[in-house]
Amino acid sequence: MARLKGKAVVAQSGGPTSAINASAAGVIQTALRNDSVFTGVYGSLNGILGVLNEELFDLAQEDPAQIDLLRKTPSAALGSCRHKLKDLSKDRADYERILEVFRAHDIRYFFYIGGNDSMDTADKLAHLAREIDYEMIAMGVPKTIDNDLAFTDHCPGYGSVAKFTATSAMEAGRDTEALYTHDTCTVQEIMGRNAGWIAASAGLARRVEEDAPHLILLPEVPFVLEKFVADVRQCLRDYKRCFIACGEGTKTADGKYLGEAGGTFAKDAFGHTQLGGAAEAVRAILEQEVGVKCRVNRAGTAQRVAMHFASRTDIKESYMVGAAAVKAAIKGTSGKMVTLVRHEEDGLYRCTTGLADLADVANGEKMLPKEYLNAAGTGVTPAFRAYALPLIAGQAEIEIGDDGLPVFARLAKHMVPHRTGRSYRAG
Amino acid sequence: MARLKGKAVVAQSGGPTSAINASAAGVIQTALRNDSVFTGVYGSLNGILGVLNEELFDLAQEDPAQIDLLRKTPSAALGSCRHKLKDLSKDRADYERILEVFRAHDIRYFFYIGGNDSMDTADKLAHLAREIDYEMIAMGVPKTIDNDLAFTDHCPGYGSVAKFTATSAMEAGRDTEALYTHDTCTVQEIMGRNAGWIAASAGLARRVEEDAPHLILLPEVPFVLEKFVADVRQCLRDYKRCFIACGEGTKTADGKYLGEAGGTFAKDAFGHTQLGGAAEAVRAILEQEVGVKCRVNRAGTAQRVAMHFASRTDIKESYMVGAAAVKAAIKGTSGKMVTLVRHEEDGLYRCTTGLADLADVANGEKMLPKEYLNAAGTGVTPAFRAYALPLIAGQAEIEIGDDGLPVFARLAKHMVPHRTGRSYRAG
Repeated sequence: MARLKGKAVVAQSGGPTSAINASAAGVIQTALRNDSVFTGVYGSLNGILGVLNEELFDLAQEDPAQIDLLRKTPSAALGSCRHKLKDLSKDRADYERILEVFRAHDIRYFFYIGGNDSMDTADKLAHLAREIDYEMIAMGVPKTIDNDLAFTDHCPGYGSVAKFTATSAMEAGRDTEALYTHDTCTVQEIMGRNAGWIAASAGLARRVEEDAPHLILLPEVPFVLEKFVADVRQCLRDYKRCFIACGEGTKTADGKYLGEAGGTFAKDAFGHTQLGGAAEAVRAILEQEVGVKCRVNRAGTAQRVAMHFASRTDIKESYMVGAAAVKAAIKGTSGKMVTLVRHEEDGLYRCTTGLADLADVANGEKMLPKEYLNAAGTGVTPAFRAYALPLIAGQAEIEIGDDGLPVFARLAKHMVPHRTGRSYRAG
Repeated sequence: MARLKGKAVVAQSGGPTSAINASAAGVIQTALRNDSVFTGVYGSLNGILGVLNEELFDLAQEDPAQIDLLRKTPSAALGSCRHKLKDLSKDRADYERILEVFRAHDIRYFFYIGGNDSMDTADKLAHLAREIDYEMIAMGVPKTIDNDLAFTDHCPGYGSVAKFTATSAMEAGRDTEALYTHDTCTVQEIMGRNAGWIAASAGLARRVEEDAPHLILLPEVPFVLEKFVADVRQCLRDYKRCFIACGEGTKTADGKYLGEAGGTFAKDAFGHTQLGGAAEAVRAILEQEVGVKCRVNRAGTAQRVAMHFASRTDIKESYMVGAAAVKAAIKGTSGKMVTLVRHEEDGLYRCTTGLADLADVANGEKMLPKEYLNAAGTGVTPAFRAYALPLIAGQAEIEIGDDGLPVFARLAKHMVPHRTGRSYRAG
């Protein structure tokens, strides 16, 4: 079979992370080096929206140093989106538009860096292209701090957010400790709407019993008010303080997010329901049910892009999956997502890449397994440590400017002239 | 004059920082080395409360490696407090109790690491001791992330929180940038109840116009709703995004904290006033007045103890002020706080220590000067950069364990037997 020649497009989707640009760098640098296959390497502005809107930019025209600096740059330098394509069986317009743009620019390779939805998009595109006999290759590059993609040992981006989360819990835990002249609580809200992988990573900070976090709340363990209050009271008796790592996706037994259900447990001094998310709900509960002072830390988006303390292992692997996607595509592979495969020999961690069907990945979701949580469901086990510690190993290099602050890449984004001759309103 | 011999006590007070333990290490190591002067070096558990409660521990019995590790450990390892002594003219009981404890243990040197209130306490003790003819030396060691102590160029702790604040604004700013397919705002809440020094430090992240933060809110500039809304709208026109660094102490023209006054500007969907602090108030304003999606990041206490990205300069200077306090005390100096003195020759920053009267420091407060803010009051000037950049230079060393996470010191705190023969109920 003759090797498919044509342009490549790379796009980023979903929530930014510290690692998603490293994956983009892996795709871009590997593709640019293989110019006998790729007649051009384009970026798509804001994920799949850039294809729909025909907003493509030529990555060959970027300063190669900036491309390289992407490995040390958080967030999504190509621009991201939260756009979910319509169901192919109900509305083909979006998909047909994408293929129209691909055809117009002779785009034959599509690399989509993202989570479940992005894998679904890439999969459907691969199918439709086959159906209409447009020869193209679609590959998925996994990323999600949530670490909830199936068929991969872990997800690029998770190691970095886990490292920062554990470190921040450790530091803020010491802060709580310093002022324990009175019983005092701190609730640190941690990302992860559906799975508790990130909240669990806070547990790595607890090397000995008195260390923070004393309690972890996460979506996999239903929140039971009476048990929680009793746990906190016990902790205050033991240590005069209680540090709680609170996953934002913590839910009650009937499936209500704590942030929404807060009002059923506790009303603030003015009789309002709590609206500020899971941690604010927990704070209200503690102040009223236990009667202790409670602080809320909620780093928000800052936690997922904390490049200044990212995991070296994570960034290296994130680059690796990007590069592997291109290498597989050159060999003619399509409709697959690159996976991370863990090898452990003599206690040494090693990681290589594998491949999984996009369709399988798109429909899977990997929750935190039971054996990673202790019996009470409030802390992590040695098995979780063994899983997570290799992923946070090493501190990623960053570039520091003369002003002592990080220097991040910003792409020039030389836009490619339109070729389809029509505009399109996505979504 | 014969050199005063006796025991030394060191205590920490106020909010934890990344640097306050470095100052403690400076005091402790310098005192332990001078055992011809100091017949013992004690820590006071939870600031002045430890003296009042006669809860003292013997620092000579600590593992010297742990004392050294204090330089790389955030928070307040001796324990901190928020206890303010009563007015000496109204109630001498607390002060007399302190001197009773000092006398019982032959404590002749008192080193208090803290902010205004701590300097006031140290000053009053020095006075009272003179009055009752108990020979002792009291020295103040400055610390406050707020950077609002007078008579010192800057405060130990500030450089580290400034470095982390700017870095986090830079990173979260990139996060906001990635998703600007629709107009979007992020409000990052930054510590500093009375002064805007930390909020201003976020401004260091803005190297070029499009960088975050686009607007800074701080206590020194009264918040005016119409102007703020107009500023945000302009920013959204210019960049399709707006990142706001919001000092928690931002106030309206009539002196109300934004967090409290929020309800006068904006009510949430349920008609409630906003209670979650300044950033939540700003979010409510933006969602209603401008109609854009708005995220709130609020790292809370985690920002002031972000040891993993502390300033090397800050930590070095924090140690230096601790050591300088002991050296001055050995020479017989009392009633003084150690200051940091900036020297700039040929554009090179150098810093030495000086001394200021405790009484002067206790009553002073240093707000952000006008020339450090631009005309609109929403950004910082080159003069502020010139002031702040040397303070954040270099990344402080930390110790990393086999698990890839920081290793912090924890003192064994060998308690000293009681000698006063009575207990005392502080406060």
